[in-house]
Amino acid sequence: MKNMVYIQSGGPTSVINTSFYGAIREAQRHADQIDHIYGSQHGIEGLIFDDLIDLGQEDDEQIELLLQTPGSILGTTRRKLPKDISDPVYGQIIENLKKHEIKYVFINGGNDSMDTCYKISQLVKQQGLDIVVIGVPKTIDNDLAATDHSLGFPSCAKFVVNTVNALIKDACCFMVGKVHIVEIMGRDAGWLTASPDVLPENNRPHLFYLPENKFDLDQFLADVKKVYEREGYAMVCISEGLQFPRDMSNVRVDGFGHAQLGGAAADLCHIVEDKLNLPTRAVELSLTQRACPVFVSRVDREEAIKTGAVAVQAALRGETGKMVVFKRTSNNPYSIEYKLEDLSKVANAVSLVPPSMMKDVTRMDESFREYIRPLIDGEVTLKCENGIAKLTNFKRIKVKA
Amino acid sequence: MKNMVYIQSGGPTSVINTSFYGAIREAQRHADQIDHIYGSQHGIEGLIFDDLIDLGQEDDEQIELLLQTPGSILGTTRRKLPKDISDPVYGQIIENLKKHEIKYVFINGGNDSMDTCYKISQLVKQQGLDIVVIGVPKTIDNDLAATDHSLGFPSCAKFVVNTVNALIKDACCFMVGKVHIVEIMGRDAGWLTASPDVLPENNRPHLFYLPENKFDLDQFLADVKKVYEREGYAMVCISEGLQFPRDMSNVRVDGFGHAQLGGAAADLCHIVEDKLNLPTRAVELSLTQRACPVFVSRVDREEAIKTGAVAVQAALRGETGKMVVFKRTSNNPYSIEYKLEDLSKVANAVSLVPPSMMKDVTRMDESFREYIRPLIDGEVTLKCENGIAKLTNFKRIKVKA
Repeated sequence: MKNMVYIQSGGPTSVINTSFYGAIREAQRHADQIDHIYGSQHGIEGLIFDDLIDLGQEDDEQIELLLQTPGSILGTTRRKLPKDISDPVYGQIIENLKKHEIKYVFINGGNDSMDTCYKISQLVKQQGLDIVVIGVPKTIDNDLAATDHSLGFPSCAKFVVNTVNALIKDACCFMVGKVHIVEIMGRDAGWLTASPDVLPENNRPHLFYLPENKFDLDQFLADVKKVYEREGYAMVCISEGLQFPRDMSNVRVDGFGHAQLGGAAADLCHIVEDKLNLPTRAVELSLTQRACPVFVSRVDREEAIKTGAVAVQAALRGETGKMVVFKRTSNNPYSIEYKLEDLSKVANAVSLVPPSMMKDVTRMDESFREYIRPLIDGEVTLKCENGIAKLTNFKRIKVKA
Repeated sequence: MKNMVYIQSGGPTSVINTSFYGAIREAQRHADQIDHIYGSQHGIEGLIFDDLIDLGQEDDEQIELLLQTPGSILGTTRRKLPKDISDPVYGQIIENLKKHEIKYVFINGGNDSMDTCYKISQLVKQQGLDIVVIGVPKTIDNDLAATDHSLGFPSCAKFVVNTVNALIKDACCFMVGKVHIVEIMGRDAGWLTASPDVLPENNRPHLFYLPENKFDLDQFLADVKKVYEREGYAMVCISEGLQFPRDMSNVRVDGFGHAQLGGAAADLCHIVEDKLNLPTRAVELSLTQRACPVFVSRVDREEAIKTGAVAVQAALRGETGKMVVFKRTSNNPYSIEYKLEDLSKVANAVSLVPPSMMKDVTRMDESFREYIRPLIDGEVTLKCENGIAKLTNFKRIKVKA
């Protein structure tokens, strides 16, 4: 038996199940080489605690709906594997890989998850097992190294761009405007925060604050005041990862040891009210930006499906310890090539918005817009029933030994 | 000359410009009776301060894009007119109505705006002017009296329903779940908050807290604990208008004298963390729910266009002091009749979710679902350019005396 197991890891995106879909469909085309398609529930936890489900038992209609189902359908985790390879957790993983006759392992995730992917690929190599491990790139933050962009980012950016487009129309219709501060995901990288800079010049946010730049609170207040006096309102995009003096007493920590973000816009609004005496409105795009299935970009969907397929093809060729990456060959017409990159070059590295893409610390350069434009292009049609998007509902038949 | 003026008032909705579109198109069909179509900028302010724009000067393509443009395209206000009819503000309104030879006045808004509408209709009657005044119902809160529902509510509910549908998929994919508290608009009425109860039973929020019911914090904590222990996470929908002991030191007041809402979910999350020691996530749907043009329901759009037309037809027939209302004649197949109701019966009255539509204080009854289902039905296609929704951009040519 030669089986495959697919793992979803880290934070979900609106296309995380789309690359899974692509991998399933490609694996089904190679039924002569892949006997069973398994999913590991809750990321690597499923391989540690023997919790796999058999995708072969699911209805085809439910597989098809993966294309518009947000959240990680297999469940996810933020667990970081220990550095010490003699840790018993690795023994459990090896045992379950053997027990279920796994030959192909796919891990879909972002930076931390590619670290897991790298460790597993090293582990099976060290143990001399005939198992290959391939990474599938995913992160709305778009901060994965060695690739032009990451799956999930384009759709999330499309949601952010269109939402801010609408929020500006909402904001500027009041006679006495407010300082609107929109908080957008991105801990270390400002790709998402900056994305509304692609909007038409007559309906574009006034100021952007990315975590890549040192945040100067006094300069921020001066910038906001100037815009408000000129426009009668202000639309400001900030990253959730922005660093400024805050009451951190309520901050919580996630499973990867990172502080859980959120609330930066509300805190900044209070500062604006106190210091500038201007009316404010904080809008945190929150989980909606990564979950909303309606602004999936056609480019993101197509690339996600293809990436899943490319990962399976690579595994079947015997490639291992690599992640699928995109190399952009042209902006207009947009085209990319699918390549493989060593996980050692990806794991825990970070890709930030380069200074060359910024006009100054509050605005982006045209080169940034050229980068974003093709990614958010193209609409998809949502299959609805009674006005509600249809989402995958799996039976989740457990794989027995 | 017999001119018309259209006024948008109060908070915007995603179809507020759609009923305006319907009125424009109907008025254009009656060019023999209506010479010019004017828009009053920033609600009643435009009539007070002589700030009207001429819609006849706008490109047809921009008029067409009103169908998918959020925010009040004419600008809006939250000004409440004084009770004293001898207030000089009324003199200014009369002067401008006469100066611009206005015969037809349309005011599109919610409860407070219908009060303005009523006052203007009384004013022109008292002055013996040959002017008719018609109200067009609008409020995402759905709390306008005398009508089955209000324009804007169905699309906002559709956004809320589909967003919560996606958030549940996002929430339940983590091994250690959180208590998710989603804050939804609605100061006094829980129509929007309750709307996700229409979701399929296997993907429905666990608890709903509407402002119609007295909120018992201890019972809330007991409910949340019970759900979390059973499900491993909890999805809770609350209204922004929920009353519970909070730090109100930062609360601001809007132009109608109401406290500006927001932050209830974050405050409740802190209480849950303190009292139950459970991980939480607050998601405030904020302005996005009323601005996002992508989940406009086809029913809402069609009714908005028709309502604008019905308002114009009523005015041309000489009706005045009335608002267009909907009477539902059937749930399945859904059908409504368009009627007119005296503004005196609408102004400042409130329609709340009746107890008969609630199963208990945390769940809705099937009769509520039957009410909501047809309203959110049907999708519309968004016209995009480079992945971005195209929105109206008016030239705003001022009307001179």
